[in-house]
Amino acid sequence: MKVLITGIDGYSGWPLALHLLARGHAVVGIDNFVTRKRVKEVGSWSATPIPSFARRQAAVRELLGQEIGFYRGDLGDYDLVRRVLETERPDAIVHLAEQRSAPYSMIDVHHAVATQVENLTGTLHLLYAMREVSPETHLVKMGTMGEYGTPNVDIPEGFFEVEFRGRKDTLPFPRQAGSWYHWSKVFDSGDVMFASKIWGLRATDVMQGVIYGIRTPEITDDRLFTRFDFDETWGTALNRFIAQAILGLPITAYGRGEQKRGFIALEDSMQSLRLAVEHPADPGQYRVFNQFDAAYSVNQLAEIAHRVGAELGLQPTIEHPPDPRVEAEQHYYVPLHDHLPRLGYVRTRELESVVREIFHDLLKYRRRLEARRHVVQPTTQWRSADSRPALEARHPPSAPSAAPPEPGHDPARSTA
Amino acid sequence: MKVLITGIDGYSGWPLALHLLARGHAVVGIDNFVTRKRVKEVGSWSATPIPSFARRQAAVRELLGQEIGFYRGDLGDYDLVRRVLETERPDAIVHLAEQRSAPYSMIDVHHAVATQVENLTGTLHLLYAMREVSPETHLVKMGTMGEYGTPNVDIPEGFFEVEFRGRKDTLPFPRQAGSWYHWSKVFDSGDVMFASKIWGLRATDVMQGVIYGIRTPEITDDRLFTRFDFDETWGTALNRFIAQAILGLPITAYGRGEQKRGFIALEDSMQSLRLAVEHPADPGQYRVFNQFDAAYSVNQLAEIAHRVGAELGLQPTIEHPPDPRVEAEQHYYVPLHDHLPRLGYVRTRELESVVREIFHDLLKYRRRLEARRHVVQPTTQWRSADSRPALEARHPPSAPSAAPPEPGHDPARSTA
Repeated sequence: MKVLITGIDGYSGWPLALHLLARGHAVVGIDNFVTRKRVKEVGSWSATPIPSFARRQAAVRELLGQEIGFYRGDLGDYDLVRRVLETERPDAIVHLAEQRSAPYSMIDVHHAVATQVENLTGTLHLLYAMREVSPETHLVKMGTMGEYGTPNVDIPEGFFEVEFRGRKDTLPFPRQAGSWYHWSKVFDSGDVMFASKIWGLRATDVMQGVIYGIRTPEITDDRLFTRFDFDETWGTALNRFIAQAILGLPITAYGRGEQKRGFIALEDSMQSLRLAVEHPADPGQYRVFNQFDAAYSVNQLAEIAHRVGAELGLQPTIEHPPDPRVEAEQHYYVPLHDHLPRLGYVRTRELESVVREIFHDLLKYRRRLEARRHVVQPTTQWRSADSRPALEARHPPSAPSAAPPEPGHDPARSTA
Repeated sequence: MKVLITGIDGYSGWPLALHLLARGHAVVGIDNFVTRKRVKEVGSWSATPIPSFARRQAAVRELLGQEIGFYRGDLGDYDLVRRVLETERPDAIVHLAEQRSAPYSMIDVHHAVATQVENLTGTLHLLYAMREVSPETHLVKMGTMGEYGTPNVDIPEGFFEVEFRGRKDTLPFPRQAGSWYHWSKVFDSGDVMFASKIWGLRATDVMQGVIYGIRTPEITDDRLFTRFDFDETWGTALNRFIAQAILGLPITAYGRGEQKRGFIALEDSMQSLRLAVEHPADPGQYRVFNQFDAAYSVNQLAEIAHRVGAELGLQPTIEHPPDPRVEAEQHYYVPLHDHLPRLGYVRTRELESVVREIFHDLLKYRRRLEARRHVVQPTTQWRSADSRPALEARHPPSAPSAAPPEPGHDPARSTA
């Protein structure tokens, strides 16, 4: 099959390209290199050195004897998106070209707006271009498990049967995202669901768990490495914990550390995306895959980083700074994930062995970590800087104010 | 109280200003006049002649002896939004400044993107400016009953108790909007809910039914009229039916005409918004009001327009062209609406008497309708122009494709 990867230069996009090539698929990509630019913007870089895209293509040519087609450009340019689809007519698009950092989206109003506007515009452009020039193409869109938040019930794969006041329906599972970034993914999900309904497009919406690891079996040479971000904006919690252990900084497990999320190894995420591509949705079908293997708490991640670091002769310590995010620190978390196994998905990697592998790879690049040690510790705040007390991480139900209704307006409050 | 109305020059914004002034509140507004511009863009105008905003202010000064503060500008300009809030520090903001037409959002990719980007950006700008300079201000945000779609269960006010696999939680009611415009309102709801949670802002999210009517008790002079749009893009179904009856065009009830929606009279919508303003949400509270009185089918609207038109000596006819929208033509529709009555809301107007009043007002401006008769009949299509058959208006549940999983990729489909 021919697969267009948007965001092919990114953390998932690049190993996905290698994985699909190894399975005999043709790969073409588009990227605007914004991740490279924005990681620089916060003063950081990838711990693994990342060659230019032209050098990445050359390494694939030399090592694998294969070609990756490439368009440099932005999904915000509708004419380009349409031209790429018209020229390539891919069987599938794996859409990864989105601003992917929750802390980045929380920096200020402009980062919030940029995140939501860019992500939503790129997805709408892809949907319209598919409708206009390539309506048989299957869209595999990268969402996030974070769309669901942490409800006190099991989390189904996108839809669930509701019984309410004596009647039943199958409805989208409610979303309660935890950052402007996560909301941008919720918005994408709405737009993709609607487009598949009105235009009969094929769509798979991947609620992706947090990915860990930098190696896949296809990464056989350092020139083929993918990024490893470890700064507070672009690095995941686990990545930062490993970097902290190597740098002799305290491992910062926010709050009580009992927040749980779903996780998946890079290699198994690539397997999942390939399975989605190889088993396309039907025309008009909008399906949702919860794509993760196991849920871990922040404390479990910190402990694994601590244990493996100690094994390697490092002397890591764990600290619990106040949680800068607004999230439940203790909560129920049972997401379901049956759809991918039904397509043949089998877990191949375990967290601890991947963490050991990351440590080994990073120790080679310890100097690159050292040179950016000042960007690892967290500073971005979800809450207001002012004195308003932090609220409990819950959505108040929609009851009107408890105050008894008063007729007319309250003259005591009037400024008229 | 001091109320900032964003979109004060619009269909609801203007009568709300008059209504709040009459109740002793101070009113200040902001508008970029984009509705005037965009109605022109589709070749139409308001059947009621609308004076410039300066003349509107002068009429209020002359007839009511009151002042309306005004900022000309766009909520897309964050510095302006912040400056307005800092200068005015309103007790409440009624946020009406959004692209409000579903058909406009469905014209093409650029109208879809503009609708979602503008609406989402304006709301985010308001939220951040509130957080930074006016955190006690209560945001009353105009949403739409259309966010919910037409589920096969009762529609609660924003939240409902869910029992799923043996556990319970109170969750946001799932949204299934029916146009890019309606989705933009869903996105706003997510952002407002999240901001009230992380920053402790006060917010009321109004799921507004379709509004009908052009008069409120405060509109005592033709210079105080609000807009009456009747073209296919900016006019509601009822407005177009009345215009069609007057113009001798067939009344176009889409499809079988059994689609139902919630409705409320302009005067009662103003009453509801005032009650929301006078009974603010608590800090950190995000509450949702379903703001409508009764549900009517398209056929019921067509029949009322037909009956009243016939009474007035017109000879209306009803036609059923294919539905250009993708929506269920027969469906369950029972939204709940208890929160506003608990604040003292009482319905004051009935549909048929308001329709009679509209006919009387419009017959005065018949020539303005005649001059734009070519823009009344519908042309915008929700579906693809190509040959893909229209799908049933339902969301397929998220099951993987029925095809059995195959290992590896399907060589028959490979283009590699």
